[in-house]
Amino acid sequence: MVKHIDVLIVGAGPAGLTAANCFNGSDLAVRIVDKKPGPDHVGKADGIKSISIEVLDSLGIGDAVFSESQRVEEIVLWNPDENGTIQRTMTIPDRVEELMKPREVCLDQGRVEGLMVENLNKHGSVQISWNTQPVGLKIDKSQKDDSAAYPITISLENINTGITETLAVKYIVGGDGAHSWLRKQLGIKLTGDLTDSTWGVLNMVPKTDFPDIRKVFVVHSVNGTVMGVPRESKMVRFYISMDGGSRHTSINVKDITAENIIEAAQIIMAPYKLEAARVPWWSSYCVGQRVADRFSQDERVFLVGDAVHTHSPKAGQGMNTSLQDGYNIGWKLRYCLEQNASRDLLSTYPIERKPVAQALIDFDREYLETFARSDITHEEFLEAYLAGQRFTTGTQIQYPESLIVKGNNLESTSPLATRLVEGVRLPDFQIVNQSDGVPVKLYHRLTCDGRFRILVFAGNLSNGASLSRLNILGDWFEKYLPASSGLEILTIHSSKREEVELMDLHPSFRPWSEDGWDYWTIYADDNSYHDGHGKVYERCGIDKEEGCFIVVRPDGYISTIRSLNQTTEILEFFSGLRESKTQSGQATESFRTRL
Amino acid sequence: MVKHIDVLIVGAGPAGLTAANCFNGSDLAVRIVDKKPGPDHVGKADGIKSISIEVLDSLGIGDAVFSESQRVEEIVLWNPDENGTIQRTMTIPDRVEELMKPREVCLDQGRVEGLMVENLNKHGSVQISWNTQPVGLKIDKSQKDDSAAYPITISLENINTGITETLAVKYIVGGDGAHSWLRKQLGIKLTGDLTDSTWGVLNMVPKTDFPDIRKVFVVHSVNGTVMGVPRESKMVRFYISMDGGSRHTSINVKDITAENIIEAAQIIMAPYKLEAARVPWWSSYCVGQRVADRFSQDERVFLVGDAVHTHSPKAGQGMNTSLQDGYNIGWKLRYCLEQNASRDLLSTYPIERKPVAQALIDFDREYLETFARSDITHEEFLEAYLAGQRFTTGTQIQYPESLIVKGNNLESTSPLATRLVEGVRLPDFQIVNQSDGVPVKLYHRLTCDGRFRILVFAGNLSNGASLSRLNILGDWFEKYLPASSGLEILTIHSSKREEVELMDLHPSFRPWSEDGWDYWTIYADDNSYHDGHGKVYERCGIDKEEGCFIVVRPDGYISTIRSLNQTTEILEFFSGLRESKTQSGQATESFRTRL
Repeated sequence: MVKHIDVLIVGAGPAGLTAANCFNGSDLAVRIVDKKPGPDHVGKADGIKSISIEVLDSLGIGDAVFSESQRVEEIVLWNPDENGTIQRTMTIPDRVEELMKPREVCLDQGRVEGLMVENLNKHGSVQISWNTQPVGLKIDKSQKDDSAAYPITISLENINTGITETLAVKYIVGGDGAHSWLRKQLGIKLTGDLTDSTWGVLNMVPKTDFPDIRKVFVVHSVNGTVMGVPRESKMVRFYISMDGGSRHTSINVKDITAENIIEAAQIIMAPYKLEAARVPWWSSYCVGQRVADRFSQDERVFLVGDAVHTHSPKAGQGMNTSLQDGYNIGWKLRYCLEQNASRDLLSTYPIERKPVAQALIDFDREYLETFARSDITHEEFLEAYLAGQRFTTGTQIQYPESLIVKGNNLESTSPLATRLVEGVRLPDFQIVNQSDGVPVKLYHRLTCDGRFRILVFAGNLSNGASLSRLNILGDWFEKYLPASSGLEILTIHSSKREEVELMDLHPSFRPWSEDGWDYWTIYADDNSYHDGHGKVYERCGIDKEEGCFIVVRPDGYISTIRSLNQTTEILEFFSGLRESKTQSGQATESFRTRL
Repeated sequence: MVKHIDVLIVGAGPAGLTAANCFNGSDLAVRIVDKKPGPDHVGKADGIKSISIEVLDSLGIGDAVFSESQRVEEIVLWNPDENGTIQRTMTIPDRVEELMKPREVCLDQGRVEGLMVENLNKHGSVQISWNTQPVGLKIDKSQKDDSAAYPITISLENINTGITETLAVKYIVGGDGAHSWLRKQLGIKLTGDLTDSTWGVLNMVPKTDFPDIRKVFVVHSVNGTVMGVPRESKMVRFYISMDGGSRHTSINVKDITAENIIEAAQIIMAPYKLEAARVPWWSSYCVGQRVADRFSQDERVFLVGDAVHTHSPKAGQGMNTSLQDGYNIGWKLRYCLEQNASRDLLSTYPIERKPVAQALIDFDREYLETFARSDITHEEFLEAYLAGQRFTTGTQIQYPESLIVKGNNLESTSPLATRLVEGVRLPDFQIVNQSDGVPVKLYHRLTCDGRFRILVFAGNLSNGASLSRLNILGDWFEKYLPASSGLEILTIHSSKREEVELMDLHPSFRPWSEDGWDYWTIYADDNSYHDGHGKVYERCGIDKEEGCFIVVRPDGYISTIRSLNQTTEILEFFSGLRESKTQSGQATESFRTRL
């Protein structure tokens, strides 16, 4: 008996686990396998950007990760003075104004993975198999375009028992790391080079009189460069150039020991004393900066994370980019399978993520160069650092036009929301629940459940005409895009909350179920009693009377921004996602009703 | 072989579990037993006041409880109009200005207990035995004053197996509920009366068009009174007077069914429709308003929670008062045992908690009267409700003078901190860590670890004279009150954070250990990068140059406020806590060194 699986995820690192978590609450047959015996406990990546916290918020574990993390609040630079003695030369707030929250927190990758695994277990939608690796792969090309088929045959081996099983699979997500077995099977090449720059990295509980040990610090001394990142408990992550920053050196990475790395740090940070109370983890590496030439195969196998891009860990982007890869393909597969949507949706994965990987490598090359150069001026370093701060927020990423990003002019902000651009991620903002007055942050509300959202910026509902306009829209939604269409409607009005009566709004905006009305779909852009005002209309540049529609993808990116009378365009957008007859060879039902 | 136990806690409800959690991280032999098979899953109390969240913060689980809870943001009153039809007559923000955060959140008592049990398991310091009840108790009075003795002999029976074991115990905390076995064994009487007012209470997932179902609502109709409290998920807690609010009725509480209660609510809330999608829990009761005549026996057995006070659940005070009882005796027992402190400390438990219980009963009597009266005016009800809001914050509680509350004049605020009073709880406020710039809320920092804290409000350290004054104090602390004295020193200065160098402060304020310096003891009352300014000096009324000492008990109450040159008084305070020779019959070592 061959088991049939909708989605098989290979590799339970940050990318694979994020993809897996996209299926929480789904009835699809999804499985994640990894050859390791369980989540990692120490080491590897640790930087978690606010954009990643928002992803984790949508998975329900952002608060848990945030509260265990060490927040990064400032960065200090140290440089040699005229006598060659290191001196603190600058303190930079780690603050990007428009985020309105910390840009970065740090927590061990192992702990983040652990929380993701706990979340999978809590929901019970995805089966997890440790000690398991793929050993055989075959794709039946003749069936690759049939959405009902299981064209992939894959063999999995249990490493402990040696027992092999064969699965018939619709889709594979490959997050099996820099040495990806899947990538090799598919003959996909990495392009780029392995630099000669040799680095040591270690997690240390330091005993030191260096005064900035709990900040991010970059010490440029005449003896080389060390970067430190404060971590949970008393731990500090150290990055040290083992060759004095030269990109061309003969140091063999395999000859490096933890003692070498600590010694190098001691020399750079002198005259401050530095001793290791504990070293829970360490490693050494030559930075490879490479991107895969393809990110997918036949829209059936999708590679994510380190399997398709490797770079230096210096900007703390490894876990973040991987997590976004997994998030991007995760919702697309779920939507495709649950909503019987067009398989064209899946082709947007490489179109969206490959340029991001390439941009990261380009950024990383320049950034690493900055770290490696010994002749860099203070100003040059500062400029590069601040550019890095902005780059790593992810708010500059814009996905290109496709069936899920549609606008009149993607080159500029929307005239309807003058501070937003289609293809860019919606910023996190605070809204106040109409029914109970509780303030909520957007990404806590945008639960990762496979649904698109239409945010209806309804304008000022204390104005009778605006309320009528909204309720006419309610009739339209009921007729053309009911709750069963794989989408959720969230209404955000610009009135004072007390001037709006929940029950005056059309039931389309507060759907009925066997548990009564849904009280978590109508929000005010208003002051809260304890947490201030989100000023959402202002932050997005939306007119408080006119309002607009914002169609938001399950991953929080803006699909399209339309005026409240452009219902035809909204309908066309969702029609464009449906499976076409020619592709599947079957009759197309409009949208599969959600169970 | 008789097992020796330092502290036995009987009853794993909110009071007992809070007491148990006070021993996390301790090496003492502590055990908690309950006759039930595990934590409750539904029902009972659900209101959690901000003061309780602060207690949970100090136990490390406040954020988890808060994030699962339903926040209460406003209360609505409904009254009959001239035609007898109910109308919304007022919306009151549930906001007490000085708290600067929500006054109340709601979560099932079972879930709160569950998180407390998980926390005990995580720390592993306290042994938990379910299905276990006491069946025999004996106190050897001749040994009761010997702090080294185990004067209590108690037999515990496993309900499932019938197996009995006998323990020799130093102290017992009795949180075994309204029908307390321990209270009866000790011959302690409850004083007060069982009212005749009959109430139904149920948790319901309602299907209704009543527009305020997600707020706290009080509907006074010509047919009686219903109060509703929004809960996690779609649940609502209903309280309904089953006798039209009369205090003298012949309705037998045992005859009441869930259907009766729902029907009563339907009649009161008409013309709005109300149906129950689900009723996970319900109960009926006559309100008993009673206080035990004694709260302890020989300073060896201490009763907490429902065992010593019962009242109506209307003000949501049940879980909160119980939790504070457990917290109060928990730290005192730990301090007494770990620090070899005077047993006089334990006599403060009834002195502090009995008046609080009595005040609660008095308040409850008046409050319930308000609910029960059908002739009450709108204004009278509102006034009573707002008084209740203030009362339940707990910020008005002042413990009387004792060896742990000492002041020159407890009748008024301190001249050194003109907005604080000795014996009152320190408000929660935000401080910014000097070492890393991370803002922290006070009660997240005041981990419940059995230690007193001396908050050193050091003034403006950018002023050389103030820094010198502080460092002279550092020498004094090193000599007279080292870190091994069962206390922790936290420094809060009023300077700009960037004007202070961490390493310029005396090591007494940043103690050294085998893991290096402690970086979580020196804080600035300054702006943070992402979370504003705590304005602590201003909120406490402390002069930004003069500063002061505030000695804070392990439960957050202010012991004493002293000027920075009153070191003699500080020393006397801690000397007063030591065990005297006459009491124990043994030689007194100053303070036992913490391991």
